[in-house]
Amino acid sequence: MAPETDTTSPKFERMALIGVGLIGSSIARAARRANLVGSIVGCARTAKTRDKAMELGIVDAMYEDPAETVAGADLVIVCSHLGSYATVGAAMSSSLAPGAIVTDVGSVKGCVARDLGPHIPAGVHLVPGHPVSGSEKTGPEAGFAELFDNRWWILTPGEGADQDVVLRLKNFVLALGSRVEIMAADRHDLVLAITSHLPHLIAYNIVSTADDMETVTQGEVVKYSAGGFRDFTRIAASDPEFWRDVFLNNRDAVLETLGRFTEDLIALQRSIRWGEGDKLLEVFSQSRDIRHRIIQAGQDTGAADFGRRTESPDNSD
Amino acid sequence: MAPETDTTSPKFERMALIGVGLIGSSIARAARRANLVGSIVGCARTAKTRDKAMELGIVDAMYEDPAETVAGADLVIVCSHLGSYATVGAAMSSSLAPGAIVTDVGSVKGCVARDLGPHIPAGVHLVPGHPVSGSEKTGPEAGFAELFDNRWWILTPGEGADQDVVLRLKNFVLALGSRVEIMAADRHDLVLAITSHLPHLIAYNIVSTADDMETVTQGEVVKYSAGGFRDFTRIAASDPEFWRDVFLNNRDAVLETLGRFTEDLIALQRSIRWGEGDKLLEVFSQSRDIRHRIIQAGQDTGAADFGRRTESPDNSD
Repeated sequence: MAPETDTTSPKFERMALIGVGLIGSSIARAARRANLVGSIVGCARTAKTRDKAMELGIVDAMYEDPAETVAGADLVIVCSHLGSYATVGAAMSSSLAPGAIVTDVGSVKGCVARDLGPHIPAGVHLVPGHPVSGSEKTGPEAGFAELFDNRWWILTPGEGADQDVVLRLKNFVLALGSRVEIMAADRHDLVLAITSHLPHLIAYNIVSTADDMETVTQGEVVKYSAGGFRDFTRIAASDPEFWRDVFLNNRDAVLETLGRFTEDLIALQRSIRWGEGDKLLEVFSQSRDIRHRIIQAGQDTGAADFGRRTESPDNSD
Repeated sequence: MAPETDTTSPKFERMALIGVGLIGSSIARAARRANLVGSIVGCARTAKTRDKAMELGIVDAMYEDPAETVAGADLVIVCSHLGSYATVGAAMSSSLAPGAIVTDVGSVKGCVARDLGPHIPAGVHLVPGHPVSGSEKTGPEAGFAELFDNRWWILTPGEGADQDVVLRLKNFVLALGSRVEIMAADRHDLVLAITSHLPHLIAYNIVSTADDMETVTQGEVVKYSAGGFRDFTRIAASDPEFWRDVFLNNRDAVLETLGRFTEDLIALQRSIRWGEGDKLLEVFSQSRDIRHRIIQAGQDTGAADFGRRTESPDNSD
């Protein structure tokens, strides 16, 4: 590896992607777009995915073995499911190049130090990360270079992290098109528990509850789903294995936010049972306010279509 | 009133709308589009709304008093909030014309017989209804003639209802552009509890829970809302008073479905606590299946954008 003249440069000679699904293949495309890397190599378990990635021309070489993939790489990005980290870490450990930066894109950050950490040799830098962006589509062909543009990418370096290394990775992520935030892993996991993990769990649960009632209502749940239910099935259409790994690995923060959610729900339930209209009105009115702040923050539009162009569930269903 | 030659004709001489908000004003527009009514009169509490409706040209006359509004009408449609039904019923009772059909558009049907029923004189026909369509926008200016096109309109006639009257109202609703379903009021209330009322309650609750945690997380809930939370704030942006009335009037069915939801959620919580990955995977996989059936039934599209054209929360957040 050539000596770095600028220790915080966003450019790398050889980027190794462990996993080339939606996120991995999008990183490859965005890195090429910004001319950030000399070569890109990838790792995938199945020949089908390796062939697809080569065919798409987004990598220079594909390997089955993580050790072969990371050999000689100065940047390694783990893009596989959270449940694979310990195995991937053990497999690549002995081949990691001195001075290399290892990061990941997982949706939970506290578990990265636990699962990857023990496999990172002295002289190799581990800086966990999470691009808060994506799509429910999967596979190398689903990726695109613009996926990270103007979205948040959170880095969660450990307390003893080399600040030049963190800055270098930050510059790389910025060059991919993202906005960057640096925070502690446990804070990340709490924030994502409420903004992403709990909403997905609730959506899965209401769809499951309705599915059980489907035997009672003979197809009517599907027929009248436009009344609001439909929007929950959309969020619940994501990859089951991906979400299983999220909940198993962010257990404490999810249980904490879930406890608060259930507490609040029981209070609403009691207000309905006892006909406390004023209390219901108070809770419902507060919700409008946070919606307003999200639109102000540019995180959504105020369009009236509930995501549909021609039909919409509503306040009259 | 001229004698009817066809007792099941969808045409009426004089349609009275109690309330000219989104639904009422859309009925006026759709009825004009299909040339279903001779004249349209409306009722609104505020001069501002009455003036707006006249200015839009969707009614021939506006009144403040329900009694004046319904005088001489052969079709009366109550389009005000559920909480107003008893008052509206008492106010219009003595002016209802013999043979007139009274219907409504409320999201709960069991309470209509209770609140409007006692005020319907002998010789006047009450047939409750619910168009399962709308938008979170409100007011006469939000209405449009196409609102009911190809959406479901549920009629819930009582057991002793005159079948010719039901058929006549059904023909009227079909002529507005809707598809029609006839079912018992209590079945309607159970089906809507799971497909619409519970989803809205859950959305309100998660937004409220997050709002309380917002003090802990210093704006991060809003900042990272694209991870899934955003979609819940959208559904929770609806009219608070409207939803208070829904929950107070569909108490039993909402508490029943809420009980099932909580039971299922506690089971998921337990699986997370004890690391039961197989059970989580089973529930998450079932959800994909019902989503697939909704798309097959034409109640949503499989578009990957979560309702956004350029950015999307996902399975990787």
